[in-house]
Amino acid sequence: MIGERIWLEKDREYVWHPFTQMKDYENKDHVLIERGEGIFLYDYNGKEYYDTISSWWVNVHGHNNVRIKKAIIKQMEKIEHVNFSGFTHTPAIELAERIINLMPKDLTRVFYSDNGSTAVEVALKMSFQYWKNKGFDKKKNFIYFENSYHGDTIGAVSVGGVQGYHGLYKPLLFDSFISEAPNCKKCKYNKEANSCQLECLNGIEKILEENSETISGVIIEPLIQAAGGMHFYSPRVLKKLREVTKQYNVHLIIDEVAMGFGRTGKMWAFEHAGITPDLVSISKGISAGYLPLAATIVTDDIYNAFYDDYNKNKTFFHGHSYTANPLACAAGIESLKIFEEDKLLEKVKETSEYLEESMKVFENNEHIENIRCLGLIAAMDVVKNKKTSEKYDSKIRIGKKIYEKGFEHGLVLRPVGDTIYYFLPLSVKKEDIKEIIKRTQDVLLGVL
Amino acid sequence: MIGERIWLEKDREYVWHPFTQMKDYENKDHVLIERGEGIFLYDYNGKEYYDTISSWWVNVHGHNNVRIKKAIIKQMEKIEHVNFSGFTHTPAIELAERIINLMPKDLTRVFYSDNGSTAVEVALKMSFQYWKNKGFDKKKNFIYFENSYHGDTIGAVSVGGVQGYHGLYKPLLFDSFISEAPNCKKCKYNKEANSCQLECLNGIEKILEENSETISGVIIEPLIQAAGGMHFYSPRVLKKLREVTKQYNVHLIIDEVAMGFGRTGKMWAFEHAGITPDLVSISKGISAGYLPLAATIVTDDIYNAFYDDYNKNKTFFHGHSYTANPLACAAGIESLKIFEEDKLLEKVKETSEYLEESMKVFENNEHIENIRCLGLIAAMDVVKNKKTSEKYDSKIRIGKKIYEKGFEHGLVLRPVGDTIYYFLPLSVKKEDIKEIIKRTQDVLLGVL
Ligand SMILES: Cc1ncc(COP(=O)(O)O)c(C=O)c1O
Ligand SMILES: Cc1ncc(COP(=O)(O)O)c(C=O)c1O
Repeated sequence: MIGERIWLEKDREYVWHPFTQMKDYENKDHVLIERGEGIFLYDYNGKEYYDTISSWWVNVHGHNNVRIKKAIIKQMEKIEHVNFSGFTHTPAIELAERIINLMPKDLTRVFYSDNGSTAVEVALKMSFQYWKNKGFDKKKNFIYFENSYHGDTIGAVSVGGVQGYHGLYKPLLFDSFISEAPNCKKCKYNKEANSCQLECLNGIEKILEENSETISGVIIEPLIQAAGGMHFYSPRVLKKLREVTKQYNVHLIIDEVAMGFGRTGKMWAFEHAGITPDLVSISKGISAGYLPLAATIVTDDIYNAFYDDYNKNKTFFHGHSYTANPLACAAGIESLKIFEEDKLLEKVKETSEYLEESMKVFENNEHIENIRCLGLIAAMDVVKNKKTSEKYDSKIRIGKKIYEKGFEHGLVLRPVGDTIYYFLPLSVKKEDIKEIIKRTQDVLLGVL
Repeated sequence: MIGERIWLEKDREYVWHPFTQMKDYENKDHVLIERGEGIFLYDYNGKEYYDTISSWWVNVHGHNNVRIKKAIIKQMEKIEHVNFSGFTHTPAIELAERIINLMPKDLTRVFYSDNGSTAVEVALKMSFQYWKNKGFDKKKNFIYFENSYHGDTIGAVSVGGVQGYHGLYKPLLFDSFISEAPNCKKCKYNKEANSCQLECLNGIEKILEENSETISGVIIEPLIQAAGGMHFYSPRVLKKLREVTKQYNVHLIIDEVAMGFGRTGKMWAFEHAGITPDLVSISKGISAGYLPLAATIVTDDIYNAFYDDYNKNKTFFHGHSYTANPLACAAGIESLKIFEEDKLLEKVKETSEYLEESMKVFENNEHIENIRCLGLIAAMDVVKNKKTSEKYDSKIRIGKKIYEKGFEHGLVLRPVGDTIYYFLPLSVKKEDIKEIIKRTQDVLLGVL
């Protein structure tokens, strides 16, 4: 269509897209999305795509959700935004109350910010300042994991373990300790659940033993390292991390930005381990995928370390202009009401079982290995040779080929590296899953 | 009211407010805002407040603006959000085009993000990577200014010059060079416009002369250092900085997050100097104060340094989940239409002249000095003794007293330190200004 061409030329002229080598689009267009409805995205020509990645893991109840829309409109009639220092408003208060009611009892306070990166920055800065406020002046380093991804601001990059994204910026990053990553589906030690002694955590225990005096916190993505390759690990890892961080007097920071809001079948992924972290970062699903919003949730112990007479200089001087935006909070409240009223997590239990069952069709594919599922997330690795686990030459960019072929089949597949994954909206239906998997098989047939 | 009490108790129970010593609110409440209309905020009891600081410098056309509201609703009927990598959409494209059309011709590309801090982080990371991509491996430091404020993520804090906010985090910050800040209303060298030789820039010239090989860029808030104390300086400073940064082959990064979108009477504050920066960060007013959104605007030269075959490893791997949120972009487009159709900058010229004239009433106040105006921003310092410029003891927290008294008079005055300022929405009317100034006089009478 003419209109489409004009827009796409303008896109090429004015827009620099995130995470994108723009030269890849020299002779190819971005897909011009016009509207969304439930699990579907529609481009300018009305072509339909299954949004199998929930628009970068943010969408919860599908696109164009009537209830969320109404909630935003209602809030717009009152107040769209006011600074959150000196002022407060009911949308922020109600959302905070609802979030705290969903957290373990020792997590009691909500500090809002705008995106996943800032929710992580807030957690890191709070942890750091906590120790200063308490007189532990030497505690300033963090431990993070290989393959971890916590966002793109310099603090978040400093605890990022994806070399391709983060390596370049080394001169700008603060010093941290990197620890071996748990990866139960590809265990380095060839252990199974019943023989595993958490060998992968020996390294971090050693770091803690030798350096706990200078260490402020450990930060980890719970159960799945997402952007770094959809690596799964057992809840036992989190349990053990909770133990050793307590033992060595350092904070455990859980980054639920991707996994939070039901993705893994529980509201928070760390619940699978039955632990209470010191600080939790959340974003993405918080506004049901509608608007930028984030929060860092902390224990009373953290909160109290900052609570003192002003002149004692313990204040947390951090904030963003749009902190606790009322429209985003209104979306968040309505989303949590839907969770409750629709008993959404019970539904997810059913659909996720169906998903896990359905994924078995890929077991016979000679280019697919390491199929893994948790909640409404499923992932599998594409290999050249399944027997030897030999990968495709990275120059071939096999993930990219699959991605592009996916569009032809009306499917948003956006592999991380050579790993195909689904990150489905919680509203997904069994029929959707069936069709998505069928189409994925067609894509694989076409590419591999 | 009972309802109000319940909300305020919940606020105290669940919410940690930004930039706030929560103990200050042990026996005092945050103001519970219920709705807004034009320049007014209304609390739960219907009490009216003049929003003289545009809700932290974000609001442009007043609260509850019919046009912006409609634009958001219209966009919600189509698509509320989709990831901006691989996909594009007309709201982001149209807003980018409109922004580029408002910029000097050499600024050609828009990279979206979520808030002012990320718009700055993107600028810093792009500048840094630009030099890597070009083979200048040593360039990695930035020069920033005393009293500067660029946000609260670790990268932004690394170029922040407000000791009270930033000092504590030193161990987490990357090394930068700090330069003396220009401050024309309190010139250290006792110069006037006609005698000034830009003595305050001798320091930065020296830093550049000695270190340009390792310096990536200079970052500055244009014309007014806002959060750091509303310090004004002449456009000549920006002109000179543009010259020396060119001469020494380093980038000039202009942080228009606060000043952009007409606050200083021109669309961008750097226009007063007739320069073209290499990178410009914008946020706040971009969505008319409705929703979190930001962008970093760059020259073709910057863009081209990243544009290459994928395997050359020059890609800018940065992005946020909510990048280019369509609802926020829709608000941004509508806002720029209002600028155009209402000839808003012409109106601002009139109201800002009126504001400047009206500020003269404070000249006779024996506790007010250093009155300064630019566009719809005006500021003045509160002193104990005008003759000696002696300040109030910081323990008295005179700014806080004024702030609280302001509420009694239906006025949002939120001094930075001991500096009272207005940062008015562009829709402000002369009658509003008249009333705001009258009430401010009453506040001062009550406190000083
Ligand atoms: C675990 C995790 N943390 C943080 C982030 C950063 O969030 P944002 O993109 O909103 O800055 C992401 C984004 O994908 C993430 O997956
Ligand atoms: C000049 C400047 N840059 C950056 C920021 C940070 O913006 P945000 O609060 O949206 O992160 C601010 C905020 O006040 C600012 O005034």
